[in-house]
This record gives sequence, C-alpha cells and structure tokens, in this order.
Amino acid sequence: MAKLKELTSSEENYSQWYNDLVVKADMAENSAVRGCMIIKPYGYAIWEKMQHALDNMFKETGHVNAYFPLFIPKSFLSREAEHVEGFAKECAVVTHYRLKANPDGDGVIVDPAAKLEEELIVRPTSETIIWNTYKNWIQSYRDLPILCNQWANVVRWEMRTRLFLRTAEFLWQEGHTAHATETEAIAEARKMLDVYADFAENFMAIPVIKGIKTASERFAGAVDTFCIEAMMQDGKALQAGTSHFLGQNFAKAFDVQFVNRENTLDYVWATSWGVSTRLIGALIMVHSDDNGLVLPPKLAPYQVVIIPIFKSNEQLAEISEKVAVIKTKLKELGISVKYDDSDNKKPGWKFAEYELKGVPVRLALGGRDLENGTVEVMRRDTLEKLTLPLDGIDGYIVNLLKEIQQNIFQKALNFRASVTREVNSYAEFKEEIEKGGFLSAHWDGTSETEERIKAETKATIRCIPFDGDKTAGVCMVTGKPSAQRVLFARSY
Amino acid sequence: MAKLKELTSSEENYSQWYNDLVVKADMAENSAVRGCMIIKPYGYAIWEKMQHALDNMFKETGHVNAYFPLFIPKSFLSREAEHVEGFAKECAVVTHYRLKANPDGDGVIVDPAAKLEEELIVRPTSETIIWNTYKNWIQSYRDLPILCNQWANVVRWEMRTRLFLRTAEFLWQEGHTAHATETEAIAEARKMLDVYADFAENFMAIPVIKGIKTASERFAGAVDTFCIEAMMQDGKALQAGTSHFLGQNFAKAFDVQFVNRENTLDYVWATSWGVSTRLIGALIMVHSDDNGLVLPPKLAPYQVVIIPIFKSNEQLAEISEKVAVIKTKLKELGISVKYDDSDNKKPGWKFAEYELKGVPVRLALGGRDLENGTVEVMRRDTLEKLTLPLDGIDGYIVNLLKEIQQNIFQKALNFRASVTREVNSYAEFKEEIEKGGFLSAHWDGTSETEERIKAETKATIRCIPFDGDKTAGVCMVTGKPSAQRVLFARSY
Repeated sequence: MAKLKELTSSEENYSQWYNDLVVKADMAENSAVRGCMIIKPYGYAIWEKMQHALDNMFKETGHVNAYFPLFIPKSFLSREAEHVEGFAKECAVVTHYRLKANPDGDGVIVDPAAKLEEELIVRPTSETIIWNTYKNWIQSYRDLPILCNQWANVVRWEMRTRLFLRTAEFLWQEGHTAHATETEAIAEARKMLDVYADFAENFMAIPVIKGIKTASERFAGAVDTFCIEAMMQDGKALQAGTSHFLGQNFAKAFDVQFVNRENTLDYVWATSWGVSTRLIGALIMVHSDDNGLVLPPKLAPYQVVIIPIFKSNEQLAEISEKVAVIKTKLKELGISVKYDDSDNKKPGWKFAEYELKGVPVRLALGGRDLENGTVEVMRRDTLEKLTLPLDGIDGYIVNLLKEIQQNIFQKALNFRASVTREVNSYAEFKEEIEKGGFLSAHWDGTSETEERIKAETKATIRCIPFDGDKTAGVCMVTGKPSAQRVLFARSY
Repeated sequence: MAKLKELTSSEENYSQWYNDLVVKADMAENSAVRGCMIIKPYGYAIWEKMQHALDNMFKETGHVNAYFPLFIPKSFLSREAEHVEGFAKECAVVTHYRLKANPDGDGVIVDPAAKLEEELIVRPTSETIIWNTYKNWIQSYRDLPILCNQWANVVRWEMRTRLFLRTAEFLWQEGHTAHATETEAIAEARKMLDVYADFAENFMAIPVIKGIKTASERFAGAVDTFCIEAMMQDGKALQAGTSHFLGQNFAKAFDVQFVNRENTLDYVWATSWGVSTRLIGALIMVHSDDNGLVLPPKLAPYQVVIIPIFKSNEQLAEISEKVAVIKTKLKELGISVKYDDSDNKKPGWKFAEYELKGVPVRLALGGRDLENGTVEVMRRDTLEKLTLPLDGIDGYIVNLLKEIQQNIFQKALNFRASVTREVNSYAEFKEEIEKGGFLSAHWDGTSETEERIKAETKATIRCIPFDGDKTAGVCMVTGKPSAQRVLFARSY
C-alpha cells in the first residue's frame, strides 16, 4: 500500500521509529523551548480521554479536585530532607518578576530591580506547597481524610528529553491525601495503585505488574513507593504509575498535627500518587507497529473512520447518504465516527493516513458496495479486511471494538510472557538481559548489590512484585539469602 | 437563623463581604506564594462545571484542544511591538535551571553555573509561542483554518491581587485560530464572543452586554477586541470575556505566510479569545447575598441537599429510607444530590452551611414529614419554604431548578436595568458615576477625552455596544460629534 509518510521500521531503529511515529501521527512535536513539547490536537484528544476515565475513577473512589499554586518557595523544598535531594536539583527557578525595555538596544531585559526576595521554583511535584496548605485545613480527626487530586503541569529540568517519555514540562495528575491512621494511608496508596492498574489494563490495554520499589528507586520523601510496571515491545520496561505511602514525613516537615480520636496530638499520615502524559508514550510503544499507531478503542479520538470510494459527485452523494445512516446508528451506540469525504486526497492516501493514526476500525464504501449493499471493514490491530452486509454493520462494529480492545491487551500480555523469565545465576542474568524483557531473580536486599547490577548491566529492579514467586532463595550475585524473586529490566 | 460563619454584610463593606464569602464558603484561599491562590474543592467543582460546558460549546463550534509550553523565550515577547508593551512588564522570569546545596549553611541556593542563555517567561498569554508553532503547521490555504484551544495556567505578576478577580496565577482557556481571510477571522472572533455571551447568560445566569473595546482598552497586539461586560451588585462592571481579531499582526511578527487560493503568498489572519477563573468572581458578585453564595443550578456542585431532622437512630433510619428513594429518582433525572446525615452537626448548623454554599434547593425531612408524607423544600434564591407531598417531589424539583436558573438571571437583568441610564452632560455624568452602574453617554472617539474622563471619574469605557443606541450626538465632555453612545462604568 502506498504510504505517504514512511516510518523508520521499529526493528531497524526502535528509537527513531518511536520519534517518527509521534511526529508523523500528529501526536506531539518539540517546541522552541528546550525540552518542552507541544501536544498536538490528535495527541491531546487521547490525553483528554485518559483524563476523563481516570477522573471518573478518582471521583468514584471519593476524591475531589482542587488547584494549588504553580510556584513553590525555594525554602519549602528543603523542609523534607530526602525530598530536597530528589527534587531540588534540576528545576526551573523564577528569580525576577519584571522585564523592562532594553536601554542599550532592542527588546526587553530582566529588570534587576525586580528581584524576588525568595526565589520561586516551578513545581516539580506539589507535596511541599500542599502540606503547607493542609496545615491550616486539619485540626481534628473530623477533618480527615482529605482526598484531593489536581490536574496540572509540572517542570523537571531533564537534560535528555524524548517526546512524552521525558520532557521538561509535562502534564499529570497528582493525588495528595491526608489520613488519621497509618493503616488507612497505606490502604489508600494501595487502592490508588489498583485504580492505576485497572486503568492501564482496561482502558490502555496494557498489562502491568504491581509491586513495591526498592529503597533506592523510592520517591524522594516516601516510606514506600508502589508502582505499576509495563513492558515495551523493545524489551524495555516503563514505570507507568506510582503511588506513595509518605508516612508522617511531610506532616512532620510542615508541622501538620491533629487531635486524634483518643484526644491526643499526632502527625497526619499521607499518600501521593500520580500518572502523567508519559503514559501516552507507553501506549504508543506497547501497541503500535510499522504501519503506525494502534490505539485501544476506549482511548481512540475516533473509533471508526469511513472512507468513500467514488468516481463522480453523484456516486459520492449516494455513498454519503448510506454513510449518514451508519453514522447516526453508531453515534447512538456511543461510537465516535469520522467520515472523510475530502476530495483532494485519494482513498489509498487516506487508508495509509488513518492506519498511521491508529483508528481501530476503517469502513470503505464504493460503487460495488452500493450495488451489493455491502461495506468493507478493516480492523487496525490485525489489518484484516472483510466485506460484510451493510445491514447490521453497527452491531458488528460494537463487538469488533470490544474484540480489538481485548485482542491488543492479550497480544501485549503474550508478548510480556514471552520476554519474562527466571534466571538463577548472575552469568545467566548478564547474558539474558541483553535480550531485554523482565528477568525474575533472587537479590540479597542490599542497595550495594542493586547498584552493582545496575552499573554492570544497566538493569534496575523494577519492583518487588506483589503477586510474584515468594519462594526464598539466594542472591544471584552475592549468594546471600533472598526472601523472594524480584523483577529486573532495563527501562525507560 | 443561627449562622455559624458570620459574613460581613455586603452593604457595610462589599469588598470584605466578597472576601469573607470566598473564604468561608470554601471556594478559595490565599497561598504561601504572593498573589497565587488555592482553589479549594468546592470552588474547583464550579470551575469544572464551567469548563465542561464551555469545552462542549467549543467542540460544537469545531474547535480542538491542544497544549503549548508553559515557557516563552524572552525574545518572542518583543516580536510584536504592541504585545510586548502590554505583556512584557510584570511577569515571572525563569533565569536558572538548577539549585544546589548551600555550601555556607542550610538549604539550597540557586546554582550560578546553571544560568539560562535566554531567560524564559512564564506565559502571561500564548500568542507568541503558538504563532511560532503555527509557522510550521501552515503552508497552504488547505492547512487552514486552525481552530485550537488550550486549557492552561497563566501568570501575570499583579501587584494588588484579589481571590479569583485578580491573581498572579490563574486558570483559563485561550483559543488561537488561524484563517485564510480577514472576513473569516472576524467572523470567528464574533462567533466566540457569542459563545461566551451564551455561556454567561444561560449557564452563569449573568446578563452581559456585547461590544467592542476602544483602542486604549484593546488587547495588546489586537486590531479589535470584542468583549462581554457584566454588572456586579455594587454597581461596578466586570469584563467577563474577550475575543480578539488580531489581523495579521502575529503572522507578520512570526513570519507565518501561506499560499492562498489565488496561488499567491499572504500572511495568515488570526484570532484569540479567553475566559478565566475570574468568571467565578463574577458569579459570586452577581448573585450572592448576605447569607452566602447563590449559585445557578446549572453550575452548582450539587443542586439539592437533603437534611434529616431526627431524634433517634430509628427515626434517622426511617428518614434515610425515604431519602434513598428521592435520591435515586433525582439522580435518574440528572440532578446532583447530597444527603447530609452526619450526626455531629445540628440541622440549624447544616441549614446555614448549605445556604452559605449556595446550594439551590434544600430538602428537610423530619418526624412530622414521615407521618404526613411530606417534605420541606427551601429555594436558596428567595429563601422561600414550602411543605409539599413527598410523592411527585422529583418532578417539582426539576421545574424548581429551571425556575431558579431563570429567576436569578431575571433578577440580575432587572438590577442591571435599574443601574443603567443615559446621561447627557459631563456634570450629570460626574454625579451619576458616584452611584455606580452603567452610564450610556456620547463621546468624541478620542483617547484624550477617554483618558480625561478616567482620570477625573475613575470610569472607563466598558465597550461600544453592538446593540446600543446608534443615534449620533455630541460628546458630553468636548461637544465634538459622537457617532453613538458608549457604555461607561467603574470596573473591576
């Protein structure tokens, strides 16, 4: 098939394939500002669908949205000892609040008289400003729990950026909850991890492994970081979401105490959890192929595209009449449809274009179909084509969309299974890690061993899986005792 | 009635009444960062409803959402001569991208080695970065129109801030469209003004006057600024939304040319349009009273609150059973309901609380209601109470919500009519402006006269109304010819 916009093949150069795809499918592009991306309408439409589904899930689990300031006073970052280590490094610092005309030439310059007394940091995450606020909201256990989420932009001054996967500015949601007891806070952090896993598997069609991070991979300031880990088609893992049990660390840093049920003063227990536009990168890498995007029907900006194949305006009018009926029926069933009857592009060009954009189902109607009362149906995931009676096509499509959603999940699950294996010696590990995928191995639980493995193999412990093999063993590197296998991979 | 949280009366001190109300009704509060507010869950829920309604209207008029960078390179602001005058003054300037541990003491300091080559400005509005992007999206008339909107935060370093009305950071949407012809761009700008007016009147229940700004009140970089103006209960006007016809100014500044239908090169025509969280300030000021918020049913976080009045747990159980039935019926009708059966607050406290929060309809059910099969219904706008049969109450509420929506709009319309008058001499103007409201008067069309009136009376020309009296006359100040009356007011 004629392809207007040739993609680099993913086997040849996976990284280039990814970049080509993001740009050519009109998902995103780099901006004039280093590391900041522009999310184009097609990419943003996917993000809106993700937001909508997640926001519903958050609300169903009792959360409300709020909005906290973009800026964080510099001193706030230093309050929590570990947090500052993790976040007060590469960040955007606002030092002035005014520009003025350049007295020596063109344009504007920073007005030196408008220097801030205390610099402001563009939020890399909002624990500090939020816990400084919660201090005023919480006096008694009756004020708890607080279950807030915010949809926001954040900035981390990354040196090496890649569209969606790692950008200086990105969009995300960050939940920040406050609780009266440790048990309740841990339950909340676990609950939200389950929400993320549910979303990843049932909307994004991406199977994920739930687990806990090792100390060295933990969020800066957390007691425990829970995560969901996904496997990309190139054999590298991607952390798709994290949920943190923060203990009383931020309550102590910002002096947030409350009168508990026993009428004594205690520090508040906290969680935070977030997913970001990075998920779009995962979505692309898990499902797409050398023809372009493959989108799960539940997140596709439009689920069905209809393309007329016509030789005259009269024929187009006839086709459009049939299409109007199908469109109405599909819309009544809650299915989004685009009818592309533009006359300045050939059908072959359109076919390639909508394959590139990952539209789950394509219908094509031509002269012969008019005669026979048929329609050609193509499914993007398998590229299979069928000619079917027009009559009843709406019901067929409803089922087909479900099938595609299920099929791409199963395909990703099979792929992950095929690249996940147990290894029992470090020599085997070093050989196997070159092939990518998840390696399940014994580890002695120390940061030293973890660090050595990372330095020697570029693999990290993605998580200690909740549902993994719990049999004890010995560390593949040191031979010391290991409580259970953990999951290693190279990762994004 | 017992009121837990006493408000300052609006007659006594309107400004204090407003601030009290915003804080006590849990809408928003000031943060630790000067001029930046925290939008609390109740306030944010209203913003979400506003976003939802507006976003649907934008999509119905063919617009798509996208996302552009938070940061703007300093030099971009200087490209459009007038734009830089308006926006490159009070703004947040990012000069560094790293902090480091303080070698001389605690905390972190800005790393002097991490100075940006070119400073970045936190966007005060996005015309420049967007037109720099559109340059790459537009080659031919076939690429037009581009109809993008973004939901985003922006920062303008205001010296005197007020919750919602004027804050350093605020949330808004900004539409940025690109067109092949002047006519089409003007039509777009006017269309979006109509969308805003429709939203203000039919969702916010705020009557607005559509018109055009004078040159001195124009958006920096626009050829024409269209606006909707609303009247607050203290007699001051508030600009509720603007839509700008930008001509070819930004296309020329960023060299965005296209091949038109005549196959010649031309600059692209532009519009931009926006409304912000400022609208929440207008919503509060137009409808609320000394008992608290009055919210239009279409934007209320919950439209109905139900309060049980009980003497025992048995009685509460009986009431809750009845309430469950009403709740289900109302939810099926698309009405949002909160049932407050908390036992640590007395009914009187709850009554005051939900009045303060402006819940449009309150139902109360007590022992006598159980016996008689009745329910007490209170409408927030008039505070009228009625006892009605429980049977059929759902249908009654559907109509009541419509009536409240209509009634508060009518009330605001009547108020505006009562404070809008024609004046025919400058002496009369000076006297009348002290009483507030809109004054319709003749003006000679010069910035000098406008400036003089502003300096002497603090009144500005809110707009030249589209539908105003078009009879010619003479300027009240200079006696020079005037093409039509314009609308003056003191404003927020």
